[in-house]
Amino acid sequence: MKTNLKHLLNKEIKEGVEILSIGTELLLGNIVNTNARWIAEQLSILGLNHFRQTTIGDNAERLSKLIKEISMRSNLLITTGGLGPTPDDLTTESIAKAFNQKIYARESIWEGIKMKLSQKKPYITNLSLKKQCFFPKDAQIINNPKGTAPGMIWKPKENFTILTFPGVPDEMKVMWEETAYNFIKSNFSDGSIFFSNTLKLTGIGEATVSETIKDLLELKNPTIAPYASLEEVKLRITTKAKSVSEAKLLIKPIKKELKETFSKNIFGEDNESLQSILVKELIKRNESIVFAESCTGGLLSSYITSVSGSSKVFKGGVIAYSNELKHSLLDVPINLINSFGAVSEEVAESMSIGVKNKLKSDWAISVSGIAGPDGGSDSKPIGLVYIAITGPNNKIIKIKKQYNPLRNRNEIQRLSVNDCLNSLRLILLS
Amino acid sequence: MKTNLKHLLNKEIKEGVEILSIGTELLLGNIVNTNARWIAEQLSILGLNHFRQTTIGDNAERLSKLIKEISMRSNLLITTGGLGPTPDDLTTESIAKAFNQKIYARESIWEGIKMKLSQKKPYITNLSLKKQCFFPKDAQIINNPKGTAPGMIWKPKENFTILTFPGVPDEMKVMWEETAYNFIKSNFSDGSIFFSNTLKLTGIGEATVSETIKDLLELKNPTIAPYASLEEVKLRITTKAKSVSEAKLLIKPIKKELKETFSKNIFGEDNESLQSILVKELIKRNESIVFAESCTGGLLSSYITSVSGSSKVFKGGVIAYSNELKHSLLDVPINLINSFGAVSEEVAESMSIGVKNKLKSDWAISVSGIAGPDGGSDSKPIGLVYIAITGPNNKIIKIKKQYNPLRNRNEIQRLSVNDCLNSLRLILLS
Repeated sequence: MKTNLKHLLNKEIKEGVEILSIGTELLLGNIVNTNARWIAEQLSILGLNHFRQTTIGDNAERLSKLIKEISMRSNLLITTGGLGPTPDDLTTESIAKAFNQKIYARESIWEGIKMKLSQKKPYITNLSLKKQCFFPKDAQIINNPKGTAPGMIWKPKENFTILTFPGVPDEMKVMWEETAYNFIKSNFSDGSIFFSNTLKLTGIGEATVSETIKDLLELKNPTIAPYASLEEVKLRITTKAKSVSEAKLLIKPIKKELKETFSKNIFGEDNESLQSILVKELIKRNESIVFAESCTGGLLSSYITSVSGSSKVFKGGVIAYSNELKHSLLDVPINLINSFGAVSEEVAESMSIGVKNKLKSDWAISVSGIAGPDGGSDSKPIGLVYIAITGPNNKIIKIKKQYNPLRNRNEIQRLSVNDCLNSLRLILLS
Repeated sequence: MKTNLKHLLNKEIKEGVEILSIGTELLLGNIVNTNARWIAEQLSILGLNHFRQTTIGDNAERLSKLIKEISMRSNLLITTGGLGPTPDDLTTESIAKAFNQKIYARESIWEGIKMKLSQKKPYITNLSLKKQCFFPKDAQIINNPKGTAPGMIWKPKENFTILTFPGVPDEMKVMWEETAYNFIKSNFSDGSIFFSNTLKLTGIGEATVSETIKDLLELKNPTIAPYASLEEVKLRITTKAKSVSEAKLLIKPIKKELKETFSKNIFGEDNESLQSILVKELIKRNESIVFAESCTGGLLSSYITSVSGSSKVFKGGVIAYSNELKHSLLDVPINLINSFGAVSEEVAESMSIGVKNKLKSDWAISVSGIAGPDGGSDSKPIGLVYIAITGPNNKIIKIKKQYNPLRNRNEIQRLSVNDCLNSLRLILLS
């Protein structure tokens, strides 16, 4: 029978779903809790109300107490962590103890664990691994295809269900997708979904975006939320609806308005990246591209080659880090480097022409700059970057950027790569 | 007067420090909670016991209730989020309400906010910003040098203090460092510190590491905790001590034992990376290096050039993604590619010799493989990678790797880069 969250809410003042992350390493700040974010997103997709996340250490007593607390106020608890073989892994027994239940070995699971281990790690014979096959009597097992620790679906009392997962993100995710998703969907979801569509902008700051669409940001359904990172601003449009098609209809007019407002800045949606849309566009045009990198040191090429299928358009590149190689590999005249310096419009232009001719392609991008933390001067401060783009007609577009010199090396490299890619995008658009 | 946490623990069964992250975007899974990790680490450094983290949405009623709960069981609460100007930002008023207190405008703060805005964003005149200058009467302000929203230090009742911070990580961090650190240290820390030292291992799995040092993992002070990522295993040794020098003494024998046990696998400590130790070693030897990349597409070069000072040893590289460029830029014979294929020991070897000769360096690394998801075959499956390293004596070391074909493109590229770097490290060691 389907549990109706709304109904329960009225009857028992229970508040839906909670996530509990278990692990002293989280409290010590050793690792970032990416699991909670991922599960939160999954719950959103299922349209479930999720009101609280808690993180707690590997302490049996505190864990039992907290789980009891949660069982009083929520219907569904998702836990991660503490399912492994070490003495610190206390989740299953602490959950059982919270409801005065015992856990029992399941021999079939133990056989499965031994088989998994004998294939992969024949040297592990540690009996402590057996711990992982102990569960409360009436718990349903969540199979773990990627590791040894299974999870469980357990309903220790009326209107309260616990799902446990290991803390290893890869194992947790596949267990969610193979088992938990369907269980939660058929037992807890009221059939509505949250649907999100994200527009990605670059070349504009978050403050300007927010100020421009101040009124839209106050909408209630759909909602629009801006998120900024170093290179881009994302606008996430979210709506609750009965189906994906209804959601898309609700989102459509908002999306249209945003696309008109930020026409030049929007480069893609959802999982698209600047590099993926460039690869797609160049494939469509049947045009090839090459790079000559100095200050970005291979990062520009690695962005393009992170895209599956990039070999159809990206022929390769040269990382001419030293002046010697700028000359020998890219035919940049020595006297040009001596007169203007390696970081100059003239050298960037020459690198771009050089790499295009040598590597014989339709497009070439070159980039030379000062990423720091050393090498800056009054006339050429850290963050000064020259980009040159040569196209099929051999027309050269030159771009000069001065990033904030207080930015670190990695940030300046990433901003440079972003401007290389975005500049090419704007050229291809026009 | 200094609050003695231990004493309070006995008297009031209070449990130290908690972190509360406020924001519906966290519950929706839109962003990862990096603030909680950072603060957790800071509390560790201050030697404070921190037992619980909670995340909750922008809902005034739930927030007030939760803060009341926390004030019953903890001495110190650190909150992030909800201090901004929008209607969703409810933290200060909800905290005040939890203790039946009112908040009042502080005109001097409002003047400060207006001044900050007129310098930076003259177009923002929104009066809702004034919200950010409302605080309980006896709250002490935490100045925000990077943004408009100040935080507060407030003691609404005996043995309970709240510190509030905005959710923007950069603002939160500088406020912590400038104001909160000293306040917490002088009011809550018992003078001891947690000190950590991390050893970094590669070329060995977490299971093998854990199995090998099973006994050490059960130590209580110092503790040793393993953390695994795709490329490496970290062993974090942590100790509580009166001073850094005492901590180092406690850690010394453990570190010695680990270094003996995993001599070949340990490549560095703490913030060191494979690339940073290679750059250091090559600078010491006064030897240069170049790369010829195929399947890694620039990623290997970008790793080396992420290290400040790498230009002293890294001359540059060639990304010969197409066969045409392998021939034209690296002198790989066309018939070699035709006979053995681009992904072969023979071609990797030829690429390595070619790039070393062309770019004139002491060391050269080449890498060619199948990163997927396309391009695999029965004889050359996805994950097959050839690496060749040529040294000053022109001796060539050839390495063949077969990564799990189920790994994604990015993982195979990263594993390849890691093996390129680690293979060179082992050669330089021997």
